[in-house]
Amino acid sequence: MTDTPLSPGPLSPGATIGILGGGQLGRMLAMAAARLGFRTQIYEPGDAPAAQVANGWTRAAWTDEQALAAFAGSVDVVTYEWENVPAETLDLLEASRPIRPGRAALRVAQDRLDEKRFLEGLGLTVAPFRDVPDLGALTAALAELGRPAILKTRRLGYDGKGQVRIDDATGAAEAFAAIEGADAILEGVVTFDREISVIVARGVTGETVCFDPGENVHAEGILRTTTVPAALTASQRQDAVLLAGRIVSALDYVGVMGVELFATGTGLVVNEIAPRVHNSGHWTEAACAVDQFEQHIRAIAGLPLGDGRRHADAVMENLIGDDMDRLPELLAAPDTRLHLYGKAETRPGRKMGHATRLTRR
Amino acid sequence: MTDTPLSPGPLSPGATIGILGGGQLGRMLAMAAARLGFRTQIYEPGDAPAAQVANGWTRAAWTDEQALAAFAGSVDVVTYEWENVPAETLDLLEASRPIRPGRAALRVAQDRLDEKRFLEGLGLTVAPFRDVPDLGALTAALAELGRPAILKTRRLGYDGKGQVRIDDATGAAEAFAAIEGADAILEGVVTFDREISVIVARGVTGETVCFDPGENVHAEGILRTTTVPAALTASQRQDAVLLAGRIVSALDYVGVMGVELFATGTGLVVNEIAPRVHNSGHWTEAACAVDQFEQHIRAIAGLPLGDGRRHADAVMENLIGDDMDRLPELLAAPDTRLHLYGKAETRPGRKMGHATRLTRR
Repeated sequence: MTDTPLSPGPLSPGATIGILGGGQLGRMLAMAAARLGFRTQIYEPGDAPAAQVANGWTRAAWTDEQALAAFAGSVDVVTYEWENVPAETLDLLEASRPIRPGRAALRVAQDRLDEKRFLEGLGLTVAPFRDVPDLGALTAALAELGRPAILKTRRLGYDGKGQVRIDDATGAAEAFAAIEGADAILEGVVTFDREISVIVARGVTGETVCFDPGENVHAEGILRTTTVPAALTASQRQDAVLLAGRIVSALDYVGVMGVELFATGTGLVVNEIAPRVHNSGHWTEAACAVDQFEQHIRAIAGLPLGDGRRHADAVMENLIGDDMDRLPELLAAPDTRLHLYGKAETRPGRKMGHATRLTRR
Repeated sequence: MTDTPLSPGPLSPGATIGILGGGQLGRMLAMAAARLGFRTQIYEPGDAPAAQVANGWTRAAWTDEQALAAFAGSVDVVTYEWENVPAETLDLLEASRPIRPGRAALRVAQDRLDEKRFLEGLGLTVAPFRDVPDLGALTAALAELGRPAILKTRRLGYDGKGQVRIDDATGAAEAFAAIEGADAILEGVVTFDREISVIVARGVTGETVCFDPGENVHAEGILRTTTVPAALTASQRQDAVLLAGRIVSALDYVGVMGVELFATGTGLVVNEIAPRVHNSGHWTEAACAVDQFEQHIRAIAGLPLGDGRRHADAVMENLIGDDMDRLPELLAAPDTRLHLYGKAETRPGRKMGHATRLTRR
């Protein structure tokens, strides 16, 4: 905590990093911060597994002005593990402490329509999309993009939530009702060879470092596995890394970002960006000297980015709900690093942990 | 925390591990416990960097019966990061909760004379030594072992503390005064090719796993670097691993132990054992899927031991006192994993962190 205005220089060990959101990403950020000698303060109204490994926990509503002021006063920089932090929360915090990554990235990532337009504006390829503020627009968009297509709310979607697939049997009105009439976009379905992601970091001085792209498998909208290396051509790998760098530079971004891509026969299509550490980057903890969590902390603390080269091939598997029953087997598996999130209750669909197996060393 | 008597089975995620001692070893144990979904409670009367990443901190004297009872009641198993926890503390805790590693190892490791006798009793080679309860015994021992020799207090020595080197110019009375007349032993000086250590783990079912031996360089009694692999012959490596296994089995040990050895032309000499995670095992965090801290937590939680194979060569360097001035260089070094301990104040001789460089991947 500093009483004086923040210096633009790097944070020194002992400084405090405020983290908005108390889930597993915040938890892993807090542990990475601790390894670099920083203190952490979690802001989270609900359950906070992150608080178990943090120095402090501000448990208050996102709009609690007094709590936000106290939180801001106790930290040197603010970051987040969750891109849907309300704008009014950020307004209050930003008045006294830097928020990294900055507001531009949040604005773009909080709204699927703005995100698509931003990415298109950079000359990148995205899935065909239409703005569908109402049922009439949806009907017109379906006629243009064809079926199947995916109706997605503009805001607050993650892990497949806020999405409806529209195939030949789905009525437009029915789909619109399923997302409760929220502002939405319609997305054409992209035929792809594989889903990949790039975890990219950008420091305060503009330097950019990418981890090797991982190949992702989803089921029911939730990430199941990430495999590195992804089966890409040299040119696809290079495109992925260049495009990720282009995105973070355009946003004057500071921190780690997850960029999800489709690899298709005609090039890479940007699916979405997440302005935070990303589930598909968890393998870095087992296979790199500096992982995505430390890389993010280094960036927002103004430190030089670390060496994120892989020293092993790896497969990261998410442990979701009943996957926890497999713990005895996973604990005994060779070359496997297990990471559980300290969540009190196992629920279907809930991310409880992950396991990374080193497949070639 | 359990209200019912402890089952002999493995702890489940959510269980609480009590850690006696709040320094950097406790801190790294707490982080490893968190990664396996356990909660931690630190017991430490003084400053406790470990408490920054733990669920709770009992800040009380080692002899505070009320605090100890509350601590015991809040945890499922007790472990320690420091072998000199007073016996009365352990007596109080042991009445209600298992202490792992057990008392036998602590008894041996708390007293250099008992330790030497125990190791000799196993048929292992130790430095020549004599029991020197008084000045007369010291004079006689010096005549037998010759000079130089090292006078060491039987209890409470670490990092070169409680030791006096006696060379030709040192008077026996002067040496005895330097250790304030404490019960002591005299040790002959061993001529060695290199100092190595084995980090060995033993689980509740008796299984034993060793990390690859590391080669240590000390200065002023403090570990400076550990390098893996150590420059050993195949037979020395095998001997090191076998003797470490023999020691933990003889003690019915549960947890991780550091075994310091001298490699000499005529075989391995056991220097000392530490019934806890060990500074010379810090490299495991950067070069193994399961590191010494997780291995210890697995053992004391009754879980299967993990795969501790190395996937890289590494050099771990301790950051002591002013070494912290080198942070900018260390943060920018390739292939390097930095770990700081969150200590508020840098002091000469104080261990502030460590850096592990992967030298071959």
